[in-house]
Amino acid sequence: MICNNLSVRADGHLAFSGVDTVEMAQKYGTPLYLMDEDRIRERCRTYQLTLHQAFDERAQALYAGKAASFRQIYRIMKEEGMGIDVVSSGELYTAASVGFPLKNAYFHSNNKTDADILLAIEQGIGYFVVDNREELDAIDRIAGSFGKTQNVLLRLTPGIDPHTYAAVSTGEVDSKFGSAIETGQAKEITAYALQLSHVHLAGFHCHVGSQVFDSDVFLRASAIMLEFIARIKQEYGYEAEILDLGGGYGVRYLDSDPEIDIAENIAQVGRAVKEQCRTLGLSLPAIRMEPGRSIVADAGLTLYTVGTVKRIPGYKNYVSVDGGMADNPRFALYRSSYTVLLANRAKDAEEKPIFRCSVVGRCCESGDILQEDVPMPQDVARGDILAVLTTGAYNYSMASNYNRLPRPPIVMLRNGKDFLAVCRESLEDICRNDL
Amino acid sequence: MICNNLSVRADGHLAFSGVDTVEMAQKYGTPLYLMDEDRIRERCRTYQLTLHQAFDERAQALYAGKAASFRQIYRIMKEEGMGIDVVSSGELYTAASVGFPLKNAYFHSNNKTDADILLAIEQGIGYFVVDNREELDAIDRIAGSFGKTQNVLLRLTPGIDPHTYAAVSTGEVDSKFGSAIETGQAKEITAYALQLSHVHLAGFHCHVGSQVFDSDVFLRASAIMLEFIARIKQEYGYEAEILDLGGGYGVRYLDSDPEIDIAENIAQVGRAVKEQCRTLGLSLPAIRMEPGRSIVADAGLTLYTVGTVKRIPGYKNYVSVDGGMADNPRFALYRSSYTVLLANRAKDAEEKPIFRCSVVGRCCESGDILQEDVPMPQDVARGDILAVLTTGAYNYSMASNYNRLPRPPIVMLRNGKDFLAVCRESLEDICRNDL
Repeated sequence: MICNNLSVRADGHLAFSGVDTVEMAQKYGTPLYLMDEDRIRERCRTYQLTLHQAFDERAQALYAGKAASFRQIYRIMKEEGMGIDVVSSGELYTAASVGFPLKNAYFHSNNKTDADILLAIEQGIGYFVVDNREELDAIDRIAGSFGKTQNVLLRLTPGIDPHTYAAVSTGEVDSKFGSAIETGQAKEITAYALQLSHVHLAGFHCHVGSQVFDSDVFLRASAIMLEFIARIKQEYGYEAEILDLGGGYGVRYLDSDPEIDIAENIAQVGRAVKEQCRTLGLSLPAIRMEPGRSIVADAGLTLYTVGTVKRIPGYKNYVSVDGGMADNPRFALYRSSYTVLLANRAKDAEEKPIFRCSVVGRCCESGDILQEDVPMPQDVARGDILAVLTTGAYNYSMASNYNRLPRPPIVMLRNGKDFLAVCRESLEDICRNDL
Repeated sequence: MICNNLSVRADGHLAFSGVDTVEMAQKYGTPLYLMDEDRIRERCRTYQLTLHQAFDERAQALYAGKAASFRQIYRIMKEEGMGIDVVSSGELYTAASVGFPLKNAYFHSNNKTDADILLAIEQGIGYFVVDNREELDAIDRIAGSFGKTQNVLLRLTPGIDPHTYAAVSTGEVDSKFGSAIETGQAKEITAYALQLSHVHLAGFHCHVGSQVFDSDVFLRASAIMLEFIARIKQEYGYEAEILDLGGGYGVRYLDSDPEIDIAENIAQVGRAVKEQCRTLGLSLPAIRMEPGRSIVADAGLTLYTVGTVKRIPGYKNYVSVDGGMADNPRFALYRSSYTVLLANRAKDAEEKPIFRCSVVGRCCESGDILQEDVPMPQDVARGDILAVLTTGAYNYSMASNYNRLPRPPIVMLRNGKDFLAVCRESLEDICRNDL
């Protein structure tokens, strides 16, 4: 199995986090998101322990909620002592609604509105990760109106292409995010921030991209950032307290995907950063990292019921399920890979004749595909339960009501028990805002 | 202007359906969907009149709600005497909730669940457009349990590539939709349907794809379908009462897009179909067409507020707005083209120096782009109002809460007056189903 929270039971059912997935499909219906809370907590602890060991006790992991944002996630983050990164008033509101301490929240986004900034300052946000000058002005003005001085980091683009798909590569100079070091714009916005009255510049942030497997990406990014910090210190006498290296460690969607030892990579970055600080005469900044996908992706799995199997002689086979791009648009958006298993007959794939099929969704759109070229037992049929693995990140958070389909519920699995975290939408819910 | 419901007022503001868009942005906030109800009604009337003239009084246009589905749309369709095509319990529920007469509703989808079928039969759906044999069995069984005989059409794939983008081309043999004529599967499912007790086969359906501009696509599709109908008549003595030719007429997103004269094309199809019926010895079937995009696309427009303008020397310029792929994922999905205008200074584009920019959204994702290479006045700045045109189809219906962003409201414009049809989501709405 691709991940060690998966196994096959004696009755042939797929088990996830020790729980029978078929029983979950029967109990809650399909489509259904399952999330392994034990796995999420384990990942949080690993990140924090590793960061403390690699840097110091001030180092902190911030969960990037855009991967999966709902109340229970923020309860977990609160209990695990994690920081969070929020990207909108909606994420901030969700976290605040379960009492997450917002002093440990960092507000991202390339385009914060005045309303976002006002809400966040009112609620006592810890830090803004400032993307641009317009935002800096708005924060200075709004914080001033509260008589506050607001902590901010500046988002910079170190000019690194992490060799990942263009849509998830954000550390390059040509990016909608942040200010480029290469063009001098990073220095410019730093100088500007330093002279504002109601802004306290606490440090710098960068994020080079998602699905990073190359072990040197964070080494290169941190090296460029520290050189920048040293130049700023020399020129303005200002030394950054915080260095936020962003997120982006890759997760495995297929057995054939590479694996990156995150703990070992962070340890390596720690050694390099400490060494470079010594060389440059800098104090070690308080390090932040922003894992999102690598915390929740393989803690999630989606269950569907097969509706029809279509064999088109000389062409292709199609297995249609009762969800699709509305609950998981990632294949439609990026042609993302996923592993698909027959959950109610997980052994049949090994024992029975196999056919290759496209697993497609129920939306009235040819592009509604979950995965192509999937091996399935020849006798897959209406009523079978399919599991799509590693759907914990960017599935529920990107889900729509396309074709007026209700969004599936999220059921958490903790210590072998299941409980609802997000209810299934009803048809009434879908019309709730219609007049 | 690309569409005649747009104009520039003396004060330089963009007017849509005669209404000042800047005033709308101020009144309702941004992002904001505006919809020109007069245009929608005009299009419905054109389709119906044209179909009646080209065929006969039995011909009917069915609005394909997947393009834009909310209560007010179904009120309009009811008042205009249109039929509708629904693809889910959610669309059916929405239409039923405003009293749309469901005898004029056709239930599509490649994967209807038993629950969908049960709800639709209970509510008195006019027709199922049956995609596959599993569904036919389920309809027969469920209709039988009500002591009913259910009208159905069979969805067939005529094997036509309408030369459009793969994801919206559905009439080809290799498709998740329907049964292929070429492979003999269409004949097989027809024979099967004819011997079921609780199913009345009323005819056949095909849909060759979206954004069709080639004038011969419907001619070729109808010719193949009529030949099939004639063969079935010869072999089984069954003559189809209804022939549903689907939808797909193209709309213009850019000034440079081609234009298709829909009324003229339908008239041409009418002449060909009548002639072929005579040749084949068939009675003229009752014709259905399923326009969706061509009814609502240019009846819609989205307004955004600019948050930041980023000039990266030697690279690119970015204009960020307060919405993006969450309210319009079509560029992210298909790299769709859109025309973007500066709504509060619509004349400046002609009078001032221009710079080219990417108009990007506020989501924390590099792929969150609304349009690339957009001409904007050099002095575009935070606070300016942007209009993205032709967003009436597949924008609200595909919208998500990605990044926990509330979905924008829909404001209808009718006879120069504005009124809310869908309220803006609140932050509470976003958390409503979270436990």
